[in-house]
Amino acid sequence: MMKLYYAAHTCALASHIALEDAGAEYSTVRIDFAAHQQRSPEYLAINPKGRVPALVTERGILTETPAMLAFIAQSFPKAKLAPLDDPFRFAGVQAFNSYLCSSVHVAHAHRMRGTRWADDPAAIEAMKRKVPDSVGACFELIEQKMLQGPWVMGDSYTVCDPYLFTLAQWMEADSVDIARFPKLRDHRHRMSERAAVRKAVAEELG
Amino acid sequence: MMKLYYAAHTCALASHIALEDAGAEYSTVRIDFAAHQQRSPEYLAINPKGRVPALVTERGILTETPAMLAFIAQSFPKAKLAPLDDPFRFAGVQAFNSYLCSSVHVAHAHRMRGTRWADDPAAIEAMKRKVPDSVGACFELIEQKMLQGPWVMGDSYTVCDPYLFTLAQWMEADSVDIARFPKLRDHRHRMSERAAVRKAVAEELG
Repeated sequence: MMKLYYAAHTCALASHIALEDAGAEYSTVRIDFAAHQQRSPEYLAINPKGRVPALVTERGILTETPAMLAFIAQSFPKAKLAPLDDPFRFAGVQAFNSYLCSSVHVAHAHRMRGTRWADDPAAIEAMKRKVPDSVGACFELIEQKMLQGPWVMGDSYTVCDPYLFTLAQWMEADSVDIARFPKLRDHRHRMSERAAVRKAVAEELG
Repeated sequence: MMKLYYAAHTCALASHIALEDAGAEYSTVRIDFAAHQQRSPEYLAINPKGRVPALVTERGILTETPAMLAFIAQSFPKAKLAPLDDPFRFAGVQAFNSYLCSSVHVAHAHRMRGTRWADDPAAIEAMKRKVPDSVGACFELIEQKMLQGPWVMGDSYTVCDPYLFTLAQWMEADSVDIARFPKLRDHRHRMSERAAVRKAVAEELG
């Protein structure tokens, strides 16, 4: 049985929802960021990066959301969470997820994790000030060019959807007005009605 | 025939090498960053993100290096550029590439692309000052925990190798001393002797 290490309000929610979507048997372990548990020797032995998520499988440990999402899709093909038999369409799924991890999540991280990239407190404040613009520009591109609707990749639900839903949760705290983005707003609403999403969210926030 | 849009000294080199490794038929188009060609209407029609690389295929256009590398590996299975029949090992390849795009490349980008995340010139200078530390910490983790040797994933060469080689090219300019990292230094040397690497590098710098 797989075990997902997560913390509330993090990108781990994407993999949590995908495990539900897949019908996987899994358990979860909550990591307490307020207590810096992600830097504990016990957790660093699981994920030397000191981040969540991490997925313990029978074969070993996986990290990095895009890799975990593709793994879940490939491991549970009956759930049809990605176009597994079409390398071009599968690459489209992966390109979307790669944009989320390397551009959207990174832009967002400059609000709370600025110390990764500067030491000067004034610089860290300057980073925070730009987050509404930089995150807003990412979601503008997603709204205009990437989100096909009703799901990210069109008619078929894929692992892109829980990942987008997860990062879109952060818009309000990043001072990005979701009312600017009607397709994204519809997507978030549609996701919030899925049983898998409700179960994963309830567990993480419970 | 596929067409790769690239600029010299960018992460596009990883896909360029992988296309050579795969024995693909492809052509290349150089985008001139000094002339801001990546923001031209013509190029934005190809990649609305205004970045390289972009890969034009018969089916459509792909972006994002990790997605393109997996696509190349899946499209040319005889080249054995990834463990395609083993979702867990394939996920290991993808996790490594995801770390490169979302952590290593992002840390590096704070030296030249700070305006993505702050407007204040002093903040942008503060970001530059931290690059040797932040990029160095990424390569320390790769050296200690991730690079199995002789290739990234062990005995088998995969698409992780050209991607690591590409980002490791930037260490000197980021003021990170590669002498600290004997496994990375060996990897870079081993890569530099491959015909595919020599061909791609010569074309990009020629």
